[in-house]
Amino acid sequence: MTIDCLAVIGAGMIGGSLARALRTAGFCNDVIGFGRNADALKKAVALGAIGRFAADAAGAVQDADLVVLAAPLATMEPLCRAIGGALQEHAVVTDVGSAKRSVVEAARTGLGAAFPRFVPGHPIAGKEKSGVEHSSADLFRDHLVILTPVPETLPGALQLVRDMWQAAGARLVELDVDHHDRVLAATSHLPHMLAFALVDCLARLPEQERVFDFAAGGFADFSRIASSSPVMWRDVCLANRSEILRALDRFAGELNELRTVIERGDGDGLLEIFSRAKEARDAFSTRRGR
Amino acid sequence: MTIDCLAVIGAGMIGGSLARALRTAGFCNDVIGFGRNADALKKAVALGAIGRFAADAAGAVQDADLVVLAAPLATMEPLCRAIGGALQEHAVVTDVGSAKRSVVEAARTGLGAAFPRFVPGHPIAGKEKSGVEHSSADLFRDHLVILTPVPETLPGALQLVRDMWQAAGARLVELDVDHHDRVLAATSHLPHMLAFALVDCLARLPEQERVFDFAAGGFADFSRIASSSPVMWRDVCLANRSEILRALDRFAGELNELRTVIERGDGDGLLEIFSRAKEARDAFSTRRGR
Repeated sequence: MTIDCLAVIGAGMIGGSLARALRTAGFCNDVIGFGRNADALKKAVALGAIGRFAADAAGAVQDADLVVLAAPLATMEPLCRAIGGALQEHAVVTDVGSAKRSVVEAARTGLGAAFPRFVPGHPIAGKEKSGVEHSSADLFRDHLVILTPVPETLPGALQLVRDMWQAAGARLVELDVDHHDRVLAATSHLPHMLAFALVDCLARLPEQERVFDFAAGGFADFSRIASSSPVMWRDVCLANRSEILRALDRFAGELNELRTVIERGDGDGLLEIFSRAKEARDAFSTRRGR
Repeated sequence: MTIDCLAVIGAGMIGGSLARALRTAGFCNDVIGFGRNADALKKAVALGAIGRFAADAAGAVQDADLVVLAAPLATMEPLCRAIGGALQEHAVVTDVGSAKRSVVEAARTGLGAAFPRFVPGHPIAGKEKSGVEHSSADLFRDHLVILTPVPETLPGALQLVRDMWQAAGARLVELDVDHHDRVLAATSHLPHMLAFALVDCLARLPEQERVFDFAAGGFADFSRIASSSPVMWRDVCLANRSEILRALDRFAGELNELRTVIERGDGDGLLEIFSRAKEARDAFSTRRGR
């Protein structure tokens, strides 16, 4: 199925990529954007991501059949309040946030009567680069998108959002909101915390160590995600705080176990941990096909 | 300068790559190998990494002008003892181990009178794949090699090893032994511990979480080094134990600081840590030219 008018709130890398994918796929006739950064909106028009942009969020959504909230997590509640009263009766709203419990609460409060037409979503795709200039129409192709409908979510709204992601080439899976937040804390939020903490830890060493001069490809791969947007990750930490703390504590326990094994010079214990990790990582590579 | 006969002890990815690079560069006329795995030695001959192989380490080095020890760290001391008495009077010995203090001690004990002709070395290049079948002649091209000569090291021996690495296309730097072990603990050994610990931590979650199904490119990059050889990393942990423990403790302190900032919901504190890390990581990318 296709729609007439799509609104994309937030003209960044993710919103821009989705808009470009949907225009390329002919999923919508018209894409109207809004964001707080006028330069980014102009760039989004120049890149063909959006056809035009509105002066405010309510203006952007008033003609929309489908609204995608691709704005920072911290802005979701005011944004939902701003558009709640301007939506058409049939309009469906979805989002792309990396944490889902906080967005569901923001939508419940802000969208009011439109909440059953809100479908929480999270594409598992991204880059460490932000900004619409890094958007691409095939960002989501063959990537997973997790939808986390709640009991109130209307089946028709869910179906439209499924159609949208399928038009963008994504694969879909549904999870419970809390399961999503717990799993993503482990597979995405925790690794980002570790990468940020490692690079910061090294950056704070005495100048004469010049450690980065001696870092190789392994370090480069490991730490790439520490180039991600600090603002986005601040928001994720605040939005998914309790699950991230749980994941950090679990990891700290594991690291302490490893430390104990190293300290007592227990070669067999090290081999056991490293072999179990290698086996899991190799299996992950095989499933990903690379 | 070039030599007549090179001996490579250890027919793995690193030893095989160096032998191939030096044969390609015409640095030596003859390469003789030795390793504990006869199949690997046959593969090394088939791949053209070595010309032939000996029945034991002493036999491999007896005609060599230059000996490269590319065997596991844990075998360095018995290996040095095995070759010490078989070396020619002028033969120079070097190694490629990821930790240097333990190798220097093994060489001091094992090589005896030949110790001044031992040049400790460590190429900052590698892959998560081991085995001679993953070797390549250009592995070291434009990569850094750290040499850590000690006061006893003879200038002529150091020069020959410099010539060898330059023939393989590497860039050279000299560091003090302890400085090497401290810096590598931070930039290489610590990230590997974190990657192994993270993957193991996730692998131990309850089956129904299926967390790896929801992991994206960031996780893939971050955890790639957890596919590295468990045996090699066991040896590195045992060889560089005290510096790795120091690095783990420094990291645990940093992670605990980050945890506190997340727990108190301190957005500005998070922004400060993430921004400092991003700046350092971006500067690292810029220096690497990608």
